[in-house]
Amino acid sequence: MEEMTVKSNHSSYPIYIGQGLRYQIRAYINKNYTNIFIITDDQVGSRYLEDVLHGFPTEENICHFTIPSGENSKSIEKFYSLQTEALKNGLDRQSLIIALGGGVVGDLAGFVAATFMRGIDYIQVPTTILAHDSSVGGKVAINHHFGKNLIGSFFSPVAVIYDVETLSTLPLHEIRSGYAEIIKEGLIANQKMFLSLLDHSLASIKPQQLEIYLKAGIQVKARIVEQDEKEANIRKFLNLGHTLGHALETIHGYGKITHGEAVANGLLFALHVSELEFQVQLPFYQLYQWLKDNNYPILSISKEEIIELMELMKNDKKSIGGKIQMVLLKEVENPVTVSIENTLMKHYIQTYLERMEKL
Amino acid sequence: MEEMTVKSNHSSYPIYIGQGLRYQIRAYINKNYTNIFIITDDQVGSRYLEDVLHGFPTEENICHFTIPSGENSKSIEKFYSLQTEALKNGLDRQSLIIALGGGVVGDLAGFVAATFMRGIDYIQVPTTILAHDSSVGGKVAINHHFGKNLIGSFFSPVAVIYDVETLSTLPLHEIRSGYAEIIKEGLIANQKMFLSLLDHSLASIKPQQLEIYLKAGIQVKARIVEQDEKEANIRKFLNLGHTLGHALETIHGYGKITHGEAVANGLLFALHVSELEFQVQLPFYQLYQWLKDNNYPILSISKEEIIELMELMKNDKKSIGGKIQMVLLKEVENPVTVSIENTLMKHYIQTYLERMEKL
Repeated sequence: MEEMTVKSNHSSYPIYIGQGLRYQIRAYINKNYTNIFIITDDQVGSRYLEDVLHGFPTEENICHFTIPSGENSKSIEKFYSLQTEALKNGLDRQSLIIALGGGVVGDLAGFVAATFMRGIDYIQVPTTILAHDSSVGGKVAINHHFGKNLIGSFFSPVAVIYDVETLSTLPLHEIRSGYAEIIKEGLIANQKMFLSLLDHSLASIKPQQLEIYLKAGIQVKARIVEQDEKEANIRKFLNLGHTLGHALETIHGYGKITHGEAVANGLLFALHVSELEFQVQLPFYQLYQWLKDNNYPILSISKEEIIELMELMKNDKKSIGGKIQMVLLKEVENPVTVSIENTLMKHYIQTYLERMEKL
Repeated sequence: MEEMTVKSNHSSYPIYIGQGLRYQIRAYINKNYTNIFIITDDQVGSRYLEDVLHGFPTEENICHFTIPSGENSKSIEKFYSLQTEALKNGLDRQSLIIALGGGVVGDLAGFVAATFMRGIDYIQVPTTILAHDSSVGGKVAINHHFGKNLIGSFFSPVAVIYDVETLSTLPLHEIRSGYAEIIKEGLIANQKMFLSLLDHSLASIKPQQLEIYLKAGIQVKARIVEQDEKEANIRKFLNLGHTLGHALETIHGYGKITHGEAVANGLLFALHVSELEFQVQLPFYQLYQWLKDNNYPILSISKEEIIELMELMKNDKKSIGGKIQMVLLKEVENPVTVSIENTLMKHYIQTYLERMEKL
């Protein structure tokens, strides 16, 4: 078991990473709670909920609720019904919420915790690779029908308990999804890791190797969050690939492609725009080839979709004064935030599509 | 114009109090925003929205939305539709929300600001006496159908701009409502003010006198919030009268009686329980007589309602482990929080009703 600490201005909390931690969550909770409310989804719950429950003494007041897996659960309706469940189960301000699952469960349960009676403690128990990213840093949210994560808070968990054993049951598309975020972290802050990541095929990567990358990815994330919890400056860099990524997810419908697959396409686009904007050479082709070899969907964009994508990108949380903001790279490990005019953005999308057609 | 500052661990913001401040809000905003979104209700909006808008230069991006006045607007549906309006109007992270109205507008607009793209700046522009309390301290919330303010955040405004001129158009029941919260502040922390408050009749109180009390009330609130922003300890005292008060509001239906009228009944009950619990003499009869003289509804409670009230009080945010928590007074200016068993609480309600019958 390995322990890291995230220490920001507003909060400090531990991240535990290791094998089989789901059986012993109680041991990592150093406070007494009147009630513990576990929120999970049908896929994760059917596999791991019992394991988690068995780790608690019978005298503990413990209840649980299972949501349908998938992005559609991050809705205002589900948010409200979880508040209702929490009240029905007698949760109070001295209660704890445990988010057992991937990013959807973590974001939703975290936002419920952030707003239940103006905020109660919660613990992230991520069960996907993707959630190594979302479970650290206190970003919690639900979706608005205009876009992803538009309603939310910055609200730190009291702990992150990461049982890497749960990753062994992930389907390949989930591994693809999470791996894309680690690639992003490499591009932002760890070139050595980035290059090493592309040396592996996802079909054959060893769990031990994956664990090493996960820890390195969390390290990148934690160090950035510590310096800028509320995303006033450098935390924005973690959105590399997400401006187009979120828009693609909205257009294709959540659940059709995974978040990480959309981000992978967004990373390619960000590398393309960066090369043009700064007249530099970046590992565009290297990344493209690796994504193709590892069966990431490389999304095509029709002419009609360009307008829609740009509208969606303008609604992105990073937009300021209606102008699209994008994270770009001057070089690997050197991200910057750039404001891009509409006509230029259109040009970038068109040249990107032309470039992709030739491949 | 008078200025106070609230300075807590997490935030610091000014409170401006004076005549006619609604015409010059721009002068108190020391930052440039991409968009300004004013949220108001039909009653306040029809009177003061134009005044506020005229105070902004025409080049400012300004938009507004009017909600129906009354507690029913603090719903999850209205919350979501305000998020939609904000997005439609192009608000981004560099935008500002202005809450122009009483406590309902302040709580709702504040919670929208707290959660829009994970939090943007907002300013409270209270227009009722009651809102002198809710606009200071960063408590924002909406209601759940199980109870008041159950979904919310602690999220401080960047400023409170209090135009006391707007109080001149308040109907008498609104003055009654707000005055009750000042009485509460007197009971908690300022005995001299408490006694002085009961020397006036609401039908004839002078605006200048009211303004003095308002400032003293805000002073009490601000000093408490500075020491305990997140209600970990002494901020709980501000809930004096609110345990029964909230429950009465729920039972009688929001809007039937005002918040302050419900709190006034709650204060009487808290004095009654305090007298029994601590075997002390408190100004129960004085307060009762003054409330009666000033036409506060003194609510009767039927036998069937006792059970319902107790259930509601258990759902109160202060409850811990299913036990009702009440703020009581050992003496005026000496509040404490006490956990009360169900049977004892039933006894207190019954003896309270008997006492009231004899009056």
